[in-house]
Amino acid sequence: MKVLIIGAHGKIGQIVSKKMSESSEYEPTAFIRKSEQIPFFENLNIPTVVASLEDSVETLSKDIKGYDAIVFTAGSGGKTGDDKTLEIDLDGAVKTMIAAEKTGITRYVMVSAAYADERSKWDATGIKPYYIAKHFADKTLKDSKLQYTIVRPVTLTDEPGEGTVGLKSIVDSLEKEISREDVADVILNSLKEPNTIRKVIEISAGDTPIEKVVKSA
Amino acid sequence: MKVLIIGAHGKIGQIVSKKMSESSEYEPTAFIRKSEQIPFFENLNIPTVVASLEDSVETLSKDIKGYDAIVFTAGSGGKTGDDKTLEIDLDGAVKTMIAAEKTGITRYVMVSAAYADERSKWDATGIKPYYIAKHFADKTLKDSKLQYTIVRPVTLTDEPGEGTVGLKSIVDSLEKEISREDVADVILNSLKEPNTIRKVIEISAGDTPIEKVVKSA
Repeated sequence: MKVLIIGAHGKIGQIVSKKMSESSEYEPTAFIRKSEQIPFFENLNIPTVVASLEDSVETLSKDIKGYDAIVFTAGSGGKTGDDKTLEIDLDGAVKTMIAAEKTGITRYVMVSAAYADERSKWDATGIKPYYIAKHFADKTLKDSKLQYTIVRPVTLTDEPGEGTVGLKSIVDSLEKEISREDVADVILNSLKEPNTIRKVIEISAGDTPIEKVVKSA
Repeated sequence: MKVLIIGAHGKIGQIVSKKMSESSEYEPTAFIRKSEQIPFFENLNIPTVVASLEDSVETLSKDIKGYDAIVFTAGSGGKTGDDKTLEIDLDGAVKTMIAAEKTGITRYVMVSAAYADERSKWDATGIKPYYIAKHFADKTLKDSKLQYTIVRPVTLTDEPGEGTVGLKSIVDSLEKEISREDVADVILNSLKEPNTIRKVIEISAGDTPIEKVVKSA
């Protein structure tokens, strides 16, 4: 499966890239923003596309063409202003959806955030603009014709993965955490599991093997 | 027709309020953000609702209930950050759409901006985040069940209205202007003209009487 990882140099993107490079089931390509990020992927034998989510749909369509699936794990991050939250997390993401539809890519895995549909929780997060952007990017994806999976983890940690997670239906607080490695494994497993198509999967740390979680999502 | 004007103290909102107060066809109510804005509407004999677009959908539903139509002409403006562009122009607007659907208001006139669907023009405007917010607010409105009219003027001026406008199909540059008073008249006329329902009307200064423009929109 040829997968384009958009935001491959981000924290989750790096783990997804590494895991895919170690598996015979995926042929990953890294969509990255800066050429100085290339060596990381050369070391993993992963080809790169250096491009920007601020490019036009037409330009992005050329970058995106020919893959079986897209994993979107890009984000403007906390160091830039909310202009970039609008331009990258919202409109940048939506432009890749339009480009995917135009170029015939149907499978699209979006890394979102738990509570992206629950406005009442946004104020307490301290990053309300980010949640608004994610909410509307996800909404656009749900309204599209793409075979999406929207993965919504709770607060992320850099702890090693456990190979098990829990569905958010059993999580009741924003404080609950999940490791980025487990999120990466949910992404890889979702790509292989048709049951996750057109589903939103809200996950936290938990006891259920990831293969089982994606099968019952 | 009982109309709630959201953003009634804005430049277009004030003109809409004044025109409605002078007509027997409308019963306007002003949705405003600050109590010091009340006297302006008292002078026009227009009742006010002081509330915030940062409130929850539940709270907004109570404020919004009972009107025949909503005119949304609020905006966070250029003096606040892009966090407010996300919170007011995008999510604030969408919350009023959800509240309208919940409370049975079907008619919704949105004041948007020309080129809100043309990404290639956004960079040149210098206010790209605003265009992204308006684009997604409009998209949400178009995807809703509301009987919307989306009015998209080109660059606004404070010149007196001419009573005539042109449809944007004949406009080819962002430099072209239109007076806020003419935009206000397009709003009032749209509310009376069923032909404008589920339409996007892009307008500039022009020679066609406004009644005729809304009939052929």
